[in-house]
Amino acid sequence: MRLRLTPREDSYYDLFADSAGNLVTASRLLVELISEGADREGIAEKMRACEHAGDERTHAIMRRLNESFITPFDREDIYRLASNLDDCMDYMEAAADLVVLYQIDHLPKEVVRQVEVLERAAELTAEAMPRLRSMKNLNEYWIEINRLENQGDQVYRRLLAKLFSGDYDALTVLKMKEVIDQLESAADAFEHVANTVESIAVKES
Amino acid sequence: MRLRLTPREDSYYDLFADSAGNLVTASRLLVELISEGADREGIAEKMRACEHAGDERTHAIMRRLNESFITPFDREDIYRLASNLDDCMDYMEAAADLVVLYQIDHLPKEVVRQVEVLERAAELTAEAMPRLRSMKNLNEYWIEINRLENQGDQVYRRLLAKLFSGDYDALTVLKMKEVIDQLESAADAFEHVANTVESIAVKES
Amino acid sequence: MRLRLTPREDSYYDLFADSAGNLVTASRLLVELISEGADREGIAEKMRACEHAGDERTHAIMRRLNESFITPFDREDIYRLASNLDDCMDYMEAAADLVVLYQIDHLPKEVVRQVEVLERAAELTAEAMPRLRSMKNLNEYWIEINRLENQGDQVYRRLLAKLFSGDYDALTVLKMKEVIDQLESAADAFEHVANTVESIAVKES
Repeated sequence: MRLRLTPREDSYYDLFADSAGNLVTASRLLVELISEGADREGIAEKMRACEHAGDERTHAIMRRLNESFITPFDREDIYRLASNLDDCMDYMEAAADLVVLYQIDHLPKEVVRQVEVLERAAELTAEAMPRLRSMKNLNEYWIEINRLENQGDQVYRRLLAKLFSGDYDALTVLKMKEVIDQLESAADAFEHVANTVESIAVKES
Repeated sequence: MRLRLTPREDSYYDLFADSAGNLVTASRLLVELISEGADREGIAEKMRACEHAGDERTHAIMRRLNESFITPFDREDIYRLASNLDDCMDYMEAAADLVVLYQIDHLPKEVVRQVEVLERAAELTAEAMPRLRSMKNLNEYWIEINRLENQGDQVYRRLLAKLFSGDYDALTVLKMKEVIDQLESAADAFEHVANTVESIAVKES
Repeated sequence: MRLRLTPREDSYYDLFADSAGNLVTASRLLVELISEGADREGIAEKMRACEHAGDERTHAIMRRLNESFITPFDREDIYRLASNLDDCMDYMEAAADLVVLYQIDHLPKEVVRQVEVLERAAELTAEAMPRLRSMKNLNEYWIEINRLENQGDQVYRRLLAKLFSGDYDALTVLKMKEVIDQLESAADAFEHVANTVESIAVKES
C-alpha cells in the first residue's frame, strides 16, 4: 500500500495529466488538419503551440526530478513516462508540420483512421494518468492501447500498399510516406506510454 | 569470483539463451524467405510467431526484474541486454514483413550476404549467452560480432550503390532500400548486444 | 560546492574536452567536403579517422565508468553525455560517407548553412566542456545551442521544400534527402548534448 505523502508529490500526477490533456488537444488538431477545407497553416501553428506547451510540462517534470529526493514511484519510471509522453507530441507535431511544408492537399482516406486511433489513444491516456495515484484499472488501459496500436498498424500497412500500388508518382509517395510514418510512430509512442504505465503498476503492486 | 546463488537466478541465463535461440530461428527463416520459390507469406507468418515468442521472453525478463531484488549482474544491464535482443528480432521481422507487403519478388543477390551475416551473428549470440554464467571467452564473441557487423556494413554499402546506379526505378529503390535498411539495423542491433555483453564482462571481472 | 578530488577524476573532463575537440575537427572536414573542387574521398577518409578517434574516447569514458566507483557527477549523466557526443560524430560521419557513396557532386547551397551551424555548435561545445569543472556559464552555452538548432531546423525545412519543388528527379531527391537528414540529426544531437549539460548543472547547483 502506498503512503500518501506531501502535496508536492501529487504534482507529478498533475503534470502527467496536463501532458496527456495536451496530447488530446493535439490529436484533435490533427483530425481537423486532414479534413476538407481546413486552414492548414493555422492549425499547424496551433500544433506548434501544443508542442511548446508539452515541452514546458516535460521540463517541469525533469526539473522536479532533479530537485527533489522523494518520488511517488521509481524516478527512472517518472523520467521514462515524461519522455514517452513527449515523444507522442513530437511525432504528431512533425506529421502536421510536414503536411503543410510539403503542401499536401490530398491524403488517402485511410489517414483519417490513423488519426482517429491517435485521438482515442490520447483520450484513454488522459483518463489513465490520474489513476496512477491509486494504481487501479490500469490494466484495461494498457490492453485497450495495445488493441488501438494494432489497429493503427493495420491501417498503416494498407496505406503503404496503396502508396506503392503505382497510383502515385515517386515524389508524392516520398512525401506522403513521411507523413504516415510520423503518424505510425505516434501510435507506437502511445504504446510505449502504456508499457511504462504497466511497468510502474507491476512494481507498485 | 561470482557466487552461485539460488536456481531462480539461473533463469535469467535460460531466458537470454531462449531469446537468442529464437533469433537463430528467425535468421534462418530470413535465409529461406529470400531464396527462389519461397512461400513468402508462409515464412512471414512464422517470423511473426518468432517475434511473439521473442516478446514473451522479453516480458518474462522484465517481469522477473520488476519482481526480484537479487540479480546475477547489474539490473540495468539485464534490462539493456533484453532490449537489445528484442531489437534484433524486431528488425528481422520488419524486413520479412516488408518483403511480403511490398510484394518484392526479386532482391539484389548481395542481400543473401546481409542475411548470412545475421544468421552467423545469431548463432554466435546463442552460443555466448550461457557463457554469461562463467563470464569466460566472451571477448572472442565480441570481436567476431564486430567483424561480422563490418562485413554487413560493406555489403549494405555495395547494395546502396547498386540501388542508386540507375538500374531501378524510384519506387522500386524506395521499397528495396527499406528492406535492406531493416537488415542493416538488425546487424547493428547484434553489435549492441555484443557491446552490452562486453560491458557486463568488464564490470564482473 | 564540489570537492576537488583525485587527479584521476579530472580525466573525465579531459576525455569530454577531447571528444568535443574531435567534433570541431569533424565539422570543419564537413565544411571542406561540400566546397567546390574538394577531394571528397580523401576528406571522407579523414572523417572516418575522426569517427574512430571519437569511438576511442567514448570507450575510454565507458571503461572508466565501469572501473571506478567515484564520479565527479551522476554516473548516468556521464554515460549520457558520452553517448550524446558520440551521436554527434556518428551523424556527421554518416553524412560525409553518403556524399561520397552516392557520388553527389552538387548539393543545394543551403547545405553550407547546415554545416556552418554544426561547426559553430561543435566550437561552443568544445569551449563548454572544461566549464563542467566549475559549472559556471553553462546556461549561455545551452541557450546558444538551442538558438543554433532552431536555425539549423529552418535551413533544413527550406531544403526540404527545395528538394520537393519538382526541380529534381526522385532518385536525386532520395539521395540528397538522406544527406540533409543526417546533418539535421547531427544538429539535434548537439542539442541533446546541451540538454544533458543543463541537467548536470541543475543537479550540481
